[in-house]
Amino acid sequence: MEAFSASHDYNLFTINNVWMMACAAGVFFMNLGFGCVESGLTRSKNTANILFKNTIVPCIGIVTYALWGFGLMYPGGDGGGWFGFAGFGLGFENDIAGLTSVYNAGYTYWTDFLYQAMFAATAATIVSGAVAERIKLGSFMVFTALLVGVSYPITGMWKWGNGWLNNLSTPFYDFAGSTVVHSVGGWAALAGIIILGPRLGKYVDGRIRPILGHSMPLVMIGVFVLWLGWFGFNGGSVLSADPGMVSLVLVTTAIAAAAGGLGATFTSWIWQKKPDVTMALNGILAGLVAITAGADQMGPISSMVIGAVGGIIVVFSVTFFDKLKLDDPVGATSVHLVNGIWGTLAVGIFGKLAGFAQLFSQIVGIVAIGAFTFVFSLVAFKLIQLVMGLRVSAEEEQVGLDIGEHGNEAYPDFQSSLKS
Amino acid sequence: MEAFSASHDYNLFTINNVWMMACAAGVFFMNLGFGCVESGLTRSKNTANILFKNTIVPCIGIVTYALWGFGLMYPGGDGGGWFGFAGFGLGFENDIAGLTSVYNAGYTYWTDFLYQAMFAATAATIVSGAVAERIKLGSFMVFTALLVGVSYPITGMWKWGNGWLNNLSTPFYDFAGSTVVHSVGGWAALAGIIILGPRLGKYVDGRIRPILGHSMPLVMIGVFVLWLGWFGFNGGSVLSADPGMVSLVLVTTAIAAAAGGLGATFTSWIWQKKPDVTMALNGILAGLVAITAGADQMGPISSMVIGAVGGIIVVFSVTFFDKLKLDDPVGATSVHLVNGIWGTLAVGIFGKLAGFAQLFSQIVGIVAIGAFTFVFSLVAFKLIQLVMGLRVSAEEEQVGLDIGEHGNEAYPDFQSSLKS
Amino acid sequence: MEAFSASHDYNLFTINNVWMMACAAGVFFMNLGFGCVESGLTRSKNTANILFKNTIVPCIGIVTYALWGFGLMYPGGDGGGWFGFAGFGLGFENDIAGLTSVYNAGYTYWTDFLYQAMFAATAATIVSGAVAERIKLGSFMVFTALLVGVSYPITGMWKWGNGWLNNLSTPFYDFAGSTVVHSVGGWAALAGIIILGPRLGKYVDGRIRPILGHSMPLVMIGVFVLWLGWFGFNGGSVLSADPGMVSLVLVTTAIAAAAGGLGATFTSWIWQKKPDVTMALNGILAGLVAITAGADQMGPISSMVIGAVGGIIVVFSVTFFDKLKLDDPVGATSVHLVNGIWGTLAVGIFGKLAGFAQLFSQIVGIVAIGAFTFVFSLVAFKLIQLVMGLRVSAEEEQVGLDIGEHGNEAYPDFQSSLKS
Repeated sequence: MEAFSASHDYNLFTINNVWMMACAAGVFFMNLGFGCVESGLTRSKNTANILFKNTIVPCIGIVTYALWGFGLMYPGGDGGGWFGFAGFGLGFENDIAGLTSVYNAGYTYWTDFLYQAMFAATAATIVSGAVAERIKLGSFMVFTALLVGVSYPITGMWKWGNGWLNNLSTPFYDFAGSTVVHSVGGWAALAGIIILGPRLGKYVDGRIRPILGHSMPLVMIGVFVLWLGWFGFNGGSVLSADPGMVSLVLVTTAIAAAAGGLGATFTSWIWQKKPDVTMALNGILAGLVAITAGADQMGPISSMVIGAVGGIIVVFSVTFFDKLKLDDPVGATSVHLVNGIWGTLAVGIFGKLAGFAQLFSQIVGIVAIGAFTFVFSLVAFKLIQLVMGLRVSAEEEQVGLDIGEHGNEAYPDFQSSLKS
Repeated sequence: MEAFSASHDYNLFTINNVWMMACAAGVFFMNLGFGCVESGLTRSKNTANILFKNTIVPCIGIVTYALWGFGLMYPGGDGGGWFGFAGFGLGFENDIAGLTSVYNAGYTYWTDFLYQAMFAATAATIVSGAVAERIKLGSFMVFTALLVGVSYPITGMWKWGNGWLNNLSTPFYDFAGSTVVHSVGGWAALAGIIILGPRLGKYVDGRIRPILGHSMPLVMIGVFVLWLGWFGFNGGSVLSADPGMVSLVLVTTAIAAAAGGLGATFTSWIWQKKPDVTMALNGILAGLVAITAGADQMGPISSMVIGAVGGIIVVFSVTFFDKLKLDDPVGATSVHLVNGIWGTLAVGIFGKLAGFAQLFSQIVGIVAIGAFTFVFSLVAFKLIQLVMGLRVSAEEEQVGLDIGEHGNEAYPDFQSSLKS
Repeated sequence: MEAFSASHDYNLFTINNVWMMACAAGVFFMNLGFGCVESGLTRSKNTANILFKNTIVPCIGIVTYALWGFGLMYPGGDGGGWFGFAGFGLGFENDIAGLTSVYNAGYTYWTDFLYQAMFAATAATIVSGAVAERIKLGSFMVFTALLVGVSYPITGMWKWGNGWLNNLSTPFYDFAGSTVVHSVGGWAALAGIIILGPRLGKYVDGRIRPILGHSMPLVMIGVFVLWLGWFGFNGGSVLSADPGMVSLVLVTTAIAAAAGGLGATFTSWIWQKKPDVTMALNGILAGLVAITAGADQMGPISSMVIGAVGGIIVVFSVTFFDKLKLDDPVGATSVHLVNGIWGTLAVGIFGKLAGFAQLFSQIVGIVAIGAFTFVFSLVAFKLIQLVMGLRVSAEEEQVGLDIGEHGNEAYPDFQSSLKS
């Protein structure tokens, strides 16, 4: 408290910190959202496996981020670089007050760690849905540790750790992580899909066979939990409780989500004759991903456009990936990769500094972070494949990963109508 | 920040704004609560349809409220009127800071919009449960746009937009919307039920056939999400973070909910021999609706009485509507309409200004807002019926709206035991 | 507002109060978490019954705490005693502002009541899982009223009401209730299990027969809702929004939960060959219970150790209780009792005042509160058994308590594969 000259500064510090802690809790809750969406969109024989993955990802994420990830992403120093490391562990082991006004005027060191650790876990969670129903559990966990513990903090540093992307003449702009978080998860997911190959029975004799998700209520619960958490994801990215800026961000976030839901609904209604409930829900997520890069730069109408376009894109993108026989059970690449790119570009089109210079920097950021993450993930998945295997046996895939990987059944009391 | 003479005023503004944003997030989350309650209390063949409706309602609500609803509900000017319009869209498109201390000393323009938009969506969500399992999707969406975009903002303005009900000699009192929000949803639901008629097989040969809800866990999840969100619904209606007033409101809200749950439990235990779990859960909602009009005016004992009476009423009301062959699958009219009226009257009985004058003004408000909403809804449903049809075909109702309206199945992996 | 000499003190009071209200809402939400975990880990024929119990427990808890529990737990006066009573009801019935700066400088009287009432409900909720699938509903409700209304406030007063445990020469330390809340629930659960006996078919011919939980998604939803609520449970126990202390507590809480999940995962992987999803989830809860007593005294590494040990313990403890034929369907005793004890001891090992004096006081507190609660619960359950019966009939147990106690079915639309 002695770091503040007057009581009302301490008060403002306290307010900001309360807001940031509440936002961290919201981002944490997104792990439940991902778990529900991903398990709902896949088959009941793989449910316990997916729930397990979404449970263990934040556990791995928080622990690795505490041990070294935080030091890797925020190396301190002069900035502008490609790589740095502040050291293992968290500082202030003995300073439990952690009132580090030197480090950060807005909130405590601990709040900073908590908020950033929750973000790190998110990137890996995105992958788990795309590789669902066929990846070996241990292999997925090793990949998660590599993505959260190595790749994500390095590319994250480029922007948020004041690295080279933050020091371009027109700096790359990514408010809350359309690229830094969502497309990173999306690129890693794409790499996984490519190396794993499609699920058995998905593409047969040149035809695309739909494999239905087993519980629509789980999907809806997941999407609304994610939307709620996104208020923390974007609202906390202001890094203070600044009234005007934070409340604007919540409004643009809400409007983009709503417009995304409507955009996907009408697109699927017109194109596929009936409005698919999973499309409406994925449209909301698409709108949320798309607004994330510039949620602090838009007005209501721009947000509506960005979200609606996101919702339209996601419907076509799902079909597009299926045409390429890239089997993504939950549409994670369409939601997080494609719309992560769209949202990042939108900053150069609708943002406060819209124009060619900004648009070019956005492309530089998208390409640089995408290339690093995609190559890193391809190599990592390939190495894991060689060393410990990546895909479960065909028999296990038929029976389901719940029995195969865990010896669990997700719903032992109900008669299944699953054939395969 | 320059609008404030001293730093500590800025701090108080920031605190109030943080609280109001958190409450807006809570009210938003109620959409998930409604989705879970309504899908849980209906059959599995209509689940995707109900989830879709509860997903699209907040999307429509937020977008229409941004485009014109906010301007319709808060027209500004001298007040005291029946109708006004501040114009389309949201102001401050170029003033993204939106620190409108001129407009509102307590929180930002954007927070105000966000909080009010979330309220608007709630009214329409109430309708969706009552008309479930038989209404055409497109027709419901059109009605939602009319209710949220036209009817709700007009009657809402009468009270909260400083209209005529707020300017009676003894002003009509409705703290957080037992009438302005809940009974409005309830009246619209009643109109829909009357015009749609009951579900096939509900009333056969003069007997009432129970149609069971398909998932009790969904109902419990929904009710507790709603209870949580209600802390924002009532707590935010203080329109500041005033410590004494807000914390009192949370206590009266919690006590009324708990008493409602106990009231309904014991009523159903005594009257129906066994305590029905859906009654206990609807009793909690009844207590919450009932306390909403006067949550800032009651002490603990009054709250307990208001909630317990709400819980008792809801059990008898559900039976009463069934006797009238008004088929409400989820009990929305009993919870939101009947208890909305009870709670509004309770302000005139237990409130700080209790007495005949207040009670009379409460009745004026209930009747005026009820009459407008009910007639508006009857006309709107009738017009929609004539123009595009209101009810799905008997065949589709048998098969379920999930297949008929969406081509989705909510639970494709499980064997159904549904006969009809 | 006049109670404060300067505006910025009022501001700090308001911030603290906002934080405490948010935390109270989080603790309230834990009731949903318990409901989901407990129903998910038991059979579908008892689901409505468990949901009912988890619905009615907070209702009973809030009402009894308002009527007399709060007065019993915080008697005021000189402190140091074994028993006291401040009187029935809540004060300030006429002072609805409730700005009781005299009583408490940090937040209002109403916020204090709300936060403490939510804690009280938690203790009883722990019991409901352990006695699930065989206890009579009315008997459980009577026990709940006795535990929340008599036993919990008395032992709670010993520590948090400034009673004798708080006045030892080296005071017993229990930051947020590893002993005061969790082990109290655990001891009561153990007493219930002993008197009730195991479920039919659990221990047959000297063999332990696994009885599978019916829905893994419910368990995951429950655990993540609990984890979220725990940020309020521990974060609010600072009793202010103090930035350094609260944010440290959230970090230690998150790290212990994550380490608990990893600890249980690897233990069950190594020991049982495959990583059980319910073990991973119970490991998270174990880590959370274990950190609760000293969440404000630990650094990141200590938290990791405490949580990981908790996760390891819970796997062996579940097996241990089964060996003793103490049938706990959800593992509540392993999570809340065993880890409540471990976490309380850990304060004497890793805390700021670690050493023999502290460790001895911790043991005194564990034994004193445990002995009182266990004996109270044994006597209460025995008396209930004699007066009104405790266990449902064998026929009802076979059919399920949903039909037997409520006339409800939790999932009427799905074909069951349950044999018993």
